[in-house]
Amino acid sequence: MKNNIRFFKKNKKIYLSDIYKILGNKNNYKNILIENISDLNSAKKNDISFFNSLKYTELLKKSKSKFILTHKKYENIVKRYSRPILVENVLKAVALITKLYYPDSLDDGVDFYAKKPNQKKYKNVKFGNNVLVGNNVIIGKDTIIGHNTIIESNVIIGTNCIIGNNVLIKYSKIGKNVRILDSTIIGKKGFGFFPDQSKNIRYPHIGLVIIEDNVEVGCNNTIDRGSLSNTVIGANTFIDNQVHIAHNVNIGKNCIITAQVGFAGSAKLGNKVSVGGQAGISGHLKIGNNVQIGGGSGVIKDIPDNTRVMGYPAKDIKSFLREKK
Amino acid sequence: MKNNIRFFKKNKKIYLSDIYKILGNKNNYKNILIENISDLNSAKKNDISFFNSLKYTELLKKSKSKFILTHKKYENIVKRYSRPILVENVLKAVALITKLYYPDSLDDGVDFYAKKPNQKKYKNVKFGNNVLVGNNVIIGKDTIIGHNTIIESNVIIGTNCIIGNNVLIKYSKIGKNVRILDSTIIGKKGFGFFPDQSKNIRYPHIGLVIIEDNVEVGCNNTIDRGSLSNTVIGANTFIDNQVHIAHNVNIGKNCIITAQVGFAGSAKLGNKVSVGGQAGISGHLKIGNNVQIGGGSGVIKDIPDNTRVMGYPAKDIKSFLREKK
Amino acid sequence: MKNNIRFFKKNKKIYLSDIYKILGNKNNYKNILIENISDLNSAKKNDISFFNSLKYTELLKKSKSKFILTHKKYENIVKRYSRPILVENVLKAVALITKLYYPDSLDDGVDFYAKKPNQKKYKNVKFGNNVLVGNNVIIGKDTIIGHNTIIESNVIIGTNCIIGNNVLIKYSKIGKNVRILDSTIIGKKGFGFFPDQSKNIRYPHIGLVIIEDNVEVGCNNTIDRGSLSNTVIGANTFIDNQVHIAHNVNIGKNCIITAQVGFAGSAKLGNKVSVGGQAGISGHLKIGNNVQIGGGSGVIKDIPDNTRVMGYPAKDIKSFLREKK
Repeated sequence: MKNNIRFFKKNKKIYLSDIYKILGNKNNYKNILIENISDLNSAKKNDISFFNSLKYTELLKKSKSKFILTHKKYENIVKRYSRPILVENVLKAVALITKLYYPDSLDDGVDFYAKKPNQKKYKNVKFGNNVLVGNNVIIGKDTIIGHNTIIESNVIIGTNCIIGNNVLIKYSKIGKNVRILDSTIIGKKGFGFFPDQSKNIRYPHIGLVIIEDNVEVGCNNTIDRGSLSNTVIGANTFIDNQVHIAHNVNIGKNCIITAQVGFAGSAKLGNKVSVGGQAGISGHLKIGNNVQIGGGSGVIKDIPDNTRVMGYPAKDIKSFLREKK
Repeated sequence: MKNNIRFFKKNKKIYLSDIYKILGNKNNYKNILIENISDLNSAKKNDISFFNSLKYTELLKKSKSKFILTHKKYENIVKRYSRPILVENVLKAVALITKLYYPDSLDDGVDFYAKKPNQKKYKNVKFGNNVLVGNNVIIGKDTIIGHNTIIESNVIIGTNCIIGNNVLIKYSKIGKNVRILDSTIIGKKGFGFFPDQSKNIRYPHIGLVIIEDNVEVGCNNTIDRGSLSNTVIGANTFIDNQVHIAHNVNIGKNCIITAQVGFAGSAKLGNKVSVGGQAGISGHLKIGNNVQIGGGSGVIKDIPDNTRVMGYPAKDIKSFLREKK
Repeated sequence: MKNNIRFFKKNKKIYLSDIYKILGNKNNYKNILIENISDLNSAKKNDISFFNSLKYTELLKKSKSKFILTHKKYENIVKRYSRPILVENVLKAVALITKLYYPDSLDDGVDFYAKKPNQKKYKNVKFGNNVLVGNNVIIGKDTIIGHNTIIESNVIIGTNCIIGNNVLIKYSKIGKNVRILDSTIIGKKGFGFFPDQSKNIRYPHIGLVIIEDNVEVGCNNTIDRGSLSNTVIGANTFIDNQVHIAHNVNIGKNCIITAQVGFAGSAKLGNKVSVGGQAGISGHLKIGNNVQIGGGSGVIKDIPDNTRVMGYPAKDIKSFLREKK
């Protein structure tokens, strides 16, 4: 998550006592500086991390973090490798602590630093009418930015890209030779929150959207940024119109995503996956390489490599078509 | 429907003879002034109303209206409580008469009163670049309006809201602490008309969109205003991206509507309803409280309180998953 | 395809030798000028055309083209009527040659000719704020163009239309009395390309979008232009919000297309077809006249006239509802 330092203002002096305080515990650990909150995989020695499912046990073993938020039922396993900090709701604790480090990551405001770009600063970039560009934006040469498009502060766009009209890009790193077509929105926070009786609690989103080289994203797409990790679109993947890609989704290279497809949060696709129009992929699923998902399918479990599926719920395409005869 | 007086110009001097005339009847009731057209429930003594299904008999009994448009087959029942005005097609007659009162309610034009807002008039509101605000708009303090957003005439927005970029809001009342994310369109007329061989006849839309406090509406949503009643989004409901909400839909409080869901006209949801991605809800259905609708479902009948459904057509989730094994 | 001359710059001096060269053959036919590339039906004597399926045999017999790109397996049949030019992948050859004639048809750039319109030139047209109009645009009298809308070069719009706010129109001819609602995108290139390991090869799109009189297109629609032929929306057809219409789709007259419907490429609908919300129509299908397609359906085969279907895959509506009881 070193990317996010560019994008999100971080509180630097957070002590273990501050963390206990917002968790409602009274303690006095003022002397221990906790540098960041990260997942098990990317956490450093002085970062706090979290463990809320046995399927992450291997990651727990290898994690460098010495402070792990967890539930009482995982206390013993966490103890073997690190120091458990017990909470009732692990994800809610993560949200509260992330907010402590990144106070601006809850709400998607408006970038008032975005202004008419200074052509001198972007010598080989062609801008349309009424374009707004934020602070600290990098745009590669020979890139075109269409009319009414907004590039928010800190965004990085590679060389030789075409960004269409009425596009909004925030919290994103975009490779070279990428096409983003008209009215697409990239990098807004994901749809994550904790329901509450009178006022839901928003989940922080300190991840980015990473779009690799040679990608084409059609019109009217929404690609949300990640919460703690990133949303990634692999190189040379092409995406049609009106597709929704939720937070933390990872799409491999050379994929073909047809119109009106929807991906729920944290779905992972391999390479050379094709998804037919209007299909939906549930959250946290793993789709292998060379998978073909038929139009209109509703995928609700993992799919192994080299498989063709169709249906709702999606199954092997031959049995689907045979049963439906 | 007192709200609509703020939004729709109304012809005031409509006599019963005018109404008979556009219905193709010849009569002479010039002396009877009919003040408005309303549904049975909200009609006052001098309003005309309509009756086109026996399921509204209870409302008919209690209605104050003395003039009821109806079909010949309901003549006798209407006679017991009011004065029937017989027509071949009740809804078409309602459309013609509504148009007589509200001639601007058929077509969604462009608000040419919308102009760069006068910061002196909106002292504690923060506006982005190229914002347009119509006449007679009220915006509460500490509200933010993003770049390129259009707030049409007469709209009311509460305090402490964030309205994103490229948003269009018309014919709407929005509460406080509401988030409307980028490129969402709120308040356009619904998709209602009478098919005709060469030129369809549009249905008037004199309802509003009412969005209550603490609601979040994601990107690229379309929320249509009501025809004779309002479209309502209850307090603290959160809506993801690319959702379509048709005219007259009522969504309760604390609901969670995931991406790419669609609601057909006049669907009603209770409180604490969650709807999974890409699900569709047919028109005129009643969904209870605490209902969970699985992703991709197609709901085509009413759902009682405290139920979990999935499938197309949607059924009890346990039987759906059992059958599909 | 005479329409496309207005819209796409064409290389005029293409000889048969140029065509052989990009196909990787060495030959010397410099003296034979090939005027254009067209489908079998519209090709003239000196145009090159292509044949890649036996179902086009009737068109082949009648075609005026003397040069036909085809695969070895069709060599004998093509020989009877014309001169076969053998290639491994017919569509890829068509793409390469089309690109030779129309070098600007692969990528959707930004129209930098689009500027604030000269009101003197468009005397009876009403423009909103921040409208951009390209070169050589024709707009009929009494037409309204909403705020922030972009009409790209060469587009033709008839009289008495209302074009909403934030609309983008390119490569299109629009009839009279048409409504295009807010944030709709009409005329972008279709989602066609040849997958390639590191950089997909885009398919040229030299077709247009043709919208006939009295059509209404809702908000947030995407209607892609054709590749070699046109995308057509028939007179008096009404389309709701968030509908996707792919390249080469033909929709008949008096159709009703409800929200979130998707049409894959080259689907053809008859007249008076109604399509319920969220239904999907696969590519290259033929849907007859007076067909009703239920909401949420997934249509994967042709549908004859006067039929009602529902389901995924769509079937006769009575059997669908019976089975699902």
